[in-house]
Amino acid sequence: MKHKSNESSTCPVARSLDVVGQWWSLLIVRDAMLGVKRFSEFERRLGMAKNILTVRLKKLVEEGILRVVPASDGSAYREYELTRKGEDLLPVMVALRQWGDRYLFRKGEEHSLLLDSRDHKPLETMTVRSEDGRVLGVHDLEMEIVKTS
Amino acid sequence: MKHKSNESSTCPVARSLDVVGQWWSLLIVRDAMLGVKRFSEFERRLGMAKNILTVRLKKLVEEGILRVVPASDGSAYREYELTRKGEDLLPVMVALRQWGDRYLFRKGEEHSLLLDSRDHKPLETMTVRSEDGRVLGVHDLEMEIVKTS
Repeated sequence: MKHKSNESSTCPVARSLDVVGQWWSLLIVRDAMLGVKRFSEFERRLGMAKNILTVRLKKLVEEGILRVVPASDGSAYREYELTRKGEDLLPVMVALRQWGDRYLFRKGEEHSLLLDSRDHKPLETMTVRSEDGRVLGVHDLEMEIVKTS
Repeated sequence: MKHKSNESSTCPVARSLDVVGQWWSLLIVRDAMLGVKRFSEFERRLGMAKNILTVRLKKLVEEGILRVVPASDGSAYREYELTRKGEDLLPVMVALRQWGDRYLFRKGEEHSLLLDSRDHKPLETMTVRSEDGRVLGVHDLEMEIVKTS
């Protein structure tokens, strides 16, 4: 079902989900973060039909999350790379990954683990914190409506 | 389109998106985090048809993200509340929100802002960090396959 657009919502969560709230959008971004650049490689990894993948990559380019660049090896292929806006989805990606790690794997199951490439150690667990560094839970928050400056 | 299940994927991002990768799942979780408990209130806020909302709430209960509890005022209503697994989606929610804040609002537009309820100040911006606290970007990461312990 196509959902009601949240483009004019005052809630940034709703607007974000308008852009990346379909499972496939974050899977494509994930693969781009892992260094996938070419159509054929996205196709193989994601198992999507060519026509569907074409539409989805186009949407991510229109949203300014991916951009199309000439192939890095000088061949005629086009490549997709993340823009700054796309790269800035990293905290969303890592938060999703850590939640999945915690709740969606049974003991002994294989799973991929993201490491800091300098020290080859697991990342810090992401937490929501106040300006002065206190860890906050869902009951420590309040909301107000402001204007974007 | 129904997507290929990622239930057996080794990637925690893929598994998480199997569970919360539809825009409506995180909107329901968002509202539950804001204190929404009753069917009629979800219905009003989300603008979903009753039958669709029923199926979606049921799915979130089955996934162990929401649970059904007797009404807090002693009435016959049923209420929905987040489980620990549901509350632990907070970092995903805040990361999505901060990304939306940064990229999806024009100057002067109204948007909701999440504050620390003790000091009434904005939250720290979420970042991905190494165990020893360095801020990491997409090019500072590597992946390996491990078994869940």
